[in-house]
Amino acid sequence: MINSDIICAISTPQGNGAIAVVRLSGNESITLLDKLYHSPKEGKRLIDQPANTIHFGVLKESDKIIDEVVISLFRNPNSYTGEDLVEISCHGSEYIQQQLLQLLIRNGVRLAKPGEFTMRAFLNGKMDLSQAEAVADLIASSSATSHKVAMQQMRGGFSSEIISLRDRLLHFISLLELELDFSEEDVEFADRTQLNDLLTNIQILIQKLLKSFDLGNAIKNGVPVAIVGHTNVGKSTLLNRILNEEKAIVSDIAGTTRDVIEDVINIEGVSFRFIDTAGIRETSDTIETIGIERTYDRISKASIVLLLVDAADDIKDVKKAIQTVEEKIGGTDKKLIVAINKIDQDGVDMNLEELIRERNIILKISAKTGENIDQLINELLSVVNLSSLNQNEVIVTNTRHYEALEKASESLQRAIDGLNSGITGDFLAQDIRETIHYLGEITGEITTDEVLGNIFKNFCIGK
Amino acid sequence: MINSDIICAISTPQGNGAIAVVRLSGNESITLLDKLYHSPKEGKRLIDQPANTIHFGVLKESDKIIDEVVISLFRNPNSYTGEDLVEISCHGSEYIQQQLLQLLIRNGVRLAKPGEFTMRAFLNGKMDLSQAEAVADLIASSSATSHKVAMQQMRGGFSSEIISLRDRLLHFISLLELELDFSEEDVEFADRTQLNDLLTNIQILIQKLLKSFDLGNAIKNGVPVAIVGHTNVGKSTLLNRILNEEKAIVSDIAGTTRDVIEDVINIEGVSFRFIDTAGIRETSDTIETIGIERTYDRISKASIVLLLVDAADDIKDVKKAIQTVEEKIGGTDKKLIVAINKIDQDGVDMNLEELIRERNIILKISAKTGENIDQLINELLSVVNLSSLNQNEVIVTNTRHYEALEKASESLQRAIDGLNSGITGDFLAQDIRETIHYLGEITGEITTDEVLGNIFKNFCIGK
Repeated sequence: MINSDIICAISTPQGNGAIAVVRLSGNESITLLDKLYHSPKEGKRLIDQPANTIHFGVLKESDKIIDEVVISLFRNPNSYTGEDLVEISCHGSEYIQQQLLQLLIRNGVRLAKPGEFTMRAFLNGKMDLSQAEAVADLIASSSATSHKVAMQQMRGGFSSEIISLRDRLLHFISLLELELDFSEEDVEFADRTQLNDLLTNIQILIQKLLKSFDLGNAIKNGVPVAIVGHTNVGKSTLLNRILNEEKAIVSDIAGTTRDVIEDVINIEGVSFRFIDTAGIRETSDTIETIGIERTYDRISKASIVLLLVDAADDIKDVKKAIQTVEEKIGGTDKKLIVAINKIDQDGVDMNLEELIRERNIILKISAKTGENIDQLINELLSVVNLSSLNQNEVIVTNTRHYEALEKASESLQRAIDGLNSGITGDFLAQDIRETIHYLGEITGEITTDEVLGNIFKNFCIGK
Repeated sequence: MINSDIICAISTPQGNGAIAVVRLSGNESITLLDKLYHSPKEGKRLIDQPANTIHFGVLKESDKIIDEVVISLFRNPNSYTGEDLVEISCHGSEYIQQQLLQLLIRNGVRLAKPGEFTMRAFLNGKMDLSQAEAVADLIASSSATSHKVAMQQMRGGFSSEIISLRDRLLHFISLLELELDFSEEDVEFADRTQLNDLLTNIQILIQKLLKSFDLGNAIKNGVPVAIVGHTNVGKSTLLNRILNEEKAIVSDIAGTTRDVIEDVINIEGVSFRFIDTAGIRETSDTIETIGIERTYDRISKASIVLLLVDAADDIKDVKKAIQTVEEKIGGTDKKLIVAINKIDQDGVDMNLEELIRERNIILKISAKTGENIDQLINELLSVVNLSSLNQNEVIVTNTRHYEALEKASESLQRAIDGLNSGITGDFLAQDIRETIHYLGEITGEITTDEVLGNIFKNFCIGK
């Protein structure tokens, strides 16, 4: 046990509810709570109760009843944190929640820092670091895919992949070290070609993981779609239409900042973040103004640019708009979807296909009647390749893991190159050890207080 | 058991948190959850586990893991509802909470109506009706006094008072009925004077309870204070000053409607609702405009009118304002506090004492420096007589109880009057039975579906 002081926090969401849960962890947590607990059964004490049991009673300070509560006891090491842990289920009034916290603090318990329960779980060996990180991802998950990936990672799927790579490298190192021991005799225990094959295979696996980050990032943070178009082109009608078509459960209007409006819509389990360029709305009515700086900024952050035009727009303006966006996204892997809206109303037929490059597309839609909206949805989804997710492959979603894998890949490449150019075993071993080090950073076998601090500060309090 | 279908609800507050709790109640709830539960221990089943125990595992549908959960088992009759009850503690993502609910609903569980868990607790005899109502009050409690009163009521303090009155009346009835049995012999088993004393004593107790409702209502709903004054008189400075003096924890800015602003401030455990007449702010700058309709409306709903004037105001305007308010509140038991603010700045001495009646008061204050703010606070508190609360007397806080007590008191008075005018025993018995009936309505010994529906519809879901 690294920490021994008792920490507490409200673990349920903020606000009033039927019940709320206050959590306590620390090796003296049951002893401490026992002093405040009064059972309706004469003489019954918490400290005498077995692990994984539930107890009704009141928490009192002198004569004042703070609340009638239900207490769940967990005992070291079979608890979330690996320490003695207590969950107090109280009436969900915010007033009572605060009174209960204050009662505990007056009795020497300390308020937990964000993620401190999970950090203790990690420090006490209940989970590795990538699993701990997945706990936060799971709590933040708001779509079927982000839930699936976080659940897989929390249950050790990602860790076991990393540990397997690491083990193979450790085996490699042991062969090398055997050689080094017999270096005076100039023996090669492992055939250099076979070694090369082994390292190359590992590199392929690491590259595959690195490549999965595009998908992982889209799943975790949502696919950013910049909607570009003038005021009356039907942006909100279109978003509502997509919502209806998809019978989306989550329609999270994620914070309206001064000049960006984001609508998050789940489409087939993937979150799409529709970023509206509100700047345009305010400053002008014509499509030409997409040249303004704010729109460029949105486009640069998006994976998909959805250029929405009105079938009644002047074709010259539309062409100019397409050219402007095409120039902006040229050379990137962003996708442009030009949607000509209101085809229910206007007979104008625009032939614009020659203006766009291969990956991009032009659709004629009606947000009002729903015409071709399913096609638009398919085009949005085509940016996300879910096949690897459906095959239960391991997907990297975490920037820290991505960076560690990149560094592991670099030192591994140095080892492969060195092997081919015939460097000595001790230099080779150094590069391999570096690769092992970086893989160990992911699962937390190698870590620093600073790294831990950065990871857990973004957790919610009470987890 | 009256209900046998299984109900479920999210019992913790809405939103994302570290953990959330989904509750299931019904006599088949454990059996049902057992089908979805998978323990890490091979072959372990929920249905085989004893009451009041905790079990880790996953909830799965075919191969899809909904979540890793901690399950608390309660068994009939030792549960909140008196039925088999399960609490599922899951990761606090709103997505997961919704997925979990949907999983349960797909498996035949029904979404609970507001307060349905508590209604089942009442129907299964776990608590009486006034205790059930106190559960909702406790969850809504936001001050020390409202918490104390609700806790006392939930733990049966109020019920036992009512039951004791009822028992004494039942004893009385039994004496009367004995007389009726022997009516032909014209026997009086109980001395009429003694009977009169008994009923009068009960009437005194009921009157005391009725009288406590003023305090109970102030405690439960807060004391409404109408602040009247022109724009720059220092209203917000004053509220901030009170907040600081009281080191108030709860500073709940309770919803700003179009023309009313309410600031709730806890002063010595009592909530005061300061209702600002925003209308005045908008329409005019002078104190004369207090005559407008909206201000009258606020004043009519307040227990205290706090007329705030500026020491530099024209004394004629101030006098007119005081007269206007005095006229308005004359004949009611509202209290007027005239506070002459900014005495730190202006030397003007206003002698206005002769303008106000006995209960009302004039104070010279400075919201800026804090001068005489403690005196103002004392004047506010003097409206609430907390002595009976401090003596742990039973206080009526519920309008339904108040109305039932009023009816009980009326029929009791008829009985007393009848006794004195010598009506026959059977008429007397009828009035007493009516009193007993109304007292029984409070604790729920006599109730209707309509009454229950009205009570529980205001509960939160999940309780």
